[in-house]
Amino acid sequence: MTYCVALHLRDGLVLLSDTRTNAGVDHISTFGKMHLFEKPGERVMAMLTAGNLALSQAIVNMLAEGLEDEATGKVETLMSVPTMFRAAQLVGRAVREAFRIDGEALKEQGVPFDVSLLLGGQIAGRTMRLFQIYAAGNFIEATADTPFLQIGEHKYGKPILDRAVTFDTDIYDGVKLALISMDSTLRSNLTVGMPIDLLVIRRDAAQVELRRRIMEDDAYFRMISDSWSEALRAAHRAIPRPDWS
Amino acid sequence: MTYCVALHLRDGLVLLSDTRTNAGVDHISTFGKMHLFEKPGERVMAMLTAGNLALSQAIVNMLAEGLEDEATGKVETLMSVPTMFRAAQLVGRAVREAFRIDGEALKEQGVPFDVSLLLGGQIAGRTMRLFQIYAAGNFIEATADTPFLQIGEHKYGKPILDRAVTFDTDIYDGVKLALISMDSTLRSNLTVGMPIDLLVIRRDAAQVELRRRIMEDDAYFRMISDSWSEALRAAHRAIPRPDWS
Repeated sequence: MTYCVALHLRDGLVLLSDTRTNAGVDHISTFGKMHLFEKPGERVMAMLTAGNLALSQAIVNMLAEGLEDEATGKVETLMSVPTMFRAAQLVGRAVREAFRIDGEALKEQGVPFDVSLLLGGQIAGRTMRLFQIYAAGNFIEATADTPFLQIGEHKYGKPILDRAVTFDTDIYDGVKLALISMDSTLRSNLTVGMPIDLLVIRRDAAQVELRRRIMEDDAYFRMISDSWSEALRAAHRAIPRPDWS
Repeated sequence: MTYCVALHLRDGLVLLSDTRTNAGVDHISTFGKMHLFEKPGERVMAMLTAGNLALSQAIVNMLAEGLEDEATGKVETLMSVPTMFRAAQLVGRAVREAFRIDGEALKEQGVPFDVSLLLGGQIAGRTMRLFQIYAAGNFIEATADTPFLQIGEHKYGKPILDRAVTFDTDIYDGVKLALISMDSTLRSNLTVGMPIDLLVIRRDAAQVELRRRIMEDDAYFRMISDSWSEALRAAHRAIPRPDWS
């Protein structure tokens, strides 16, 4: 399984993904699910993938090689598209191309066409945007009302985001909240695993501000994990028991 | 959807269930999912149901009417079985009987045979036990290592239980934690809804200690919900931001 989350905040984007993939519980590997497309000062985009690993890799490769624009015949990549909307459309086209190539054979083997992606970024002088692309190649966009998107094993880590993340959340508070959300997921689903990949893209910087692979022994992540457990215990202890008995 | 949770603690059992059922998002009703079988001083059992409502109701009715013991020809009910293990077996038999009657027709309509149950209780002089019965009629038992069981929409409310509930948790702290777990689920899944039903059965009492239907405007539940949100906000604010930037 996988857990990826992206926050779309006033100050910029926070993206976080785990690295565990599994084919059954006895075949576990580490694969990065965060893909960066950057030309500092000109554009920066990051894509997070969940679902079937072969499909994810096929889509990443297609986007790196480029897809031909049917109207103009020109080959487009995430490094050449003029807008984030066109970037999301391009990812959607790559998903549909993967379906065209592999969909039938997967169906014959009873394997679902399971892939979903988050794409966030900004092209200099244009709007920063964050999209979630579905297996059908269609997509939705995060807004100030709903400032985060999740793919993969999203339920365990959602309550903290629902309660705490707003569009006005500080970007490094966002990092903290995404890490708490990841920690809850790691604890509850063994097929989501360390290390985790973090990316921070500040609005209008048109380049990565922070990229970090957080390992099992990372002091800050361990502190968050321990503090959060302790804070939850203190929080429920502080609530009085009911007087119904 | 449904969320039911049961805690098996040193002091006794805490059982909690929501009351929302839905056939599509535009057909929502209120149905209790908590069924009590009690003869005070002699035995007390409670069963929580999740899944297809017609199946749940059929199983509850079969258990009320009783099922014939194949070996002895005697009709058994939850009020007549001599042990909790036999009670769990009886529920399993009712599930299998429901499958025998409805399984084929459901399959023809493409409806999954989806039902799961929690059964907890004690017969005077015997051990208090808590079971989860699956759609196949087989079952598992909560132990001191894993002192809670959940059915239905279990993921949103699991992190708090994972972190806070142990076999030694006080029974009314257990009530509080189950309510926090329910609150997280209510916030994240619209098909889990108020009111909620609570039952507390103290060990060796062989009768219900507390049965309460908690309504939308219940002051204690609203206090828990508000306090918990506030505590989570305070908890993440208290954790320092990373100094990675």
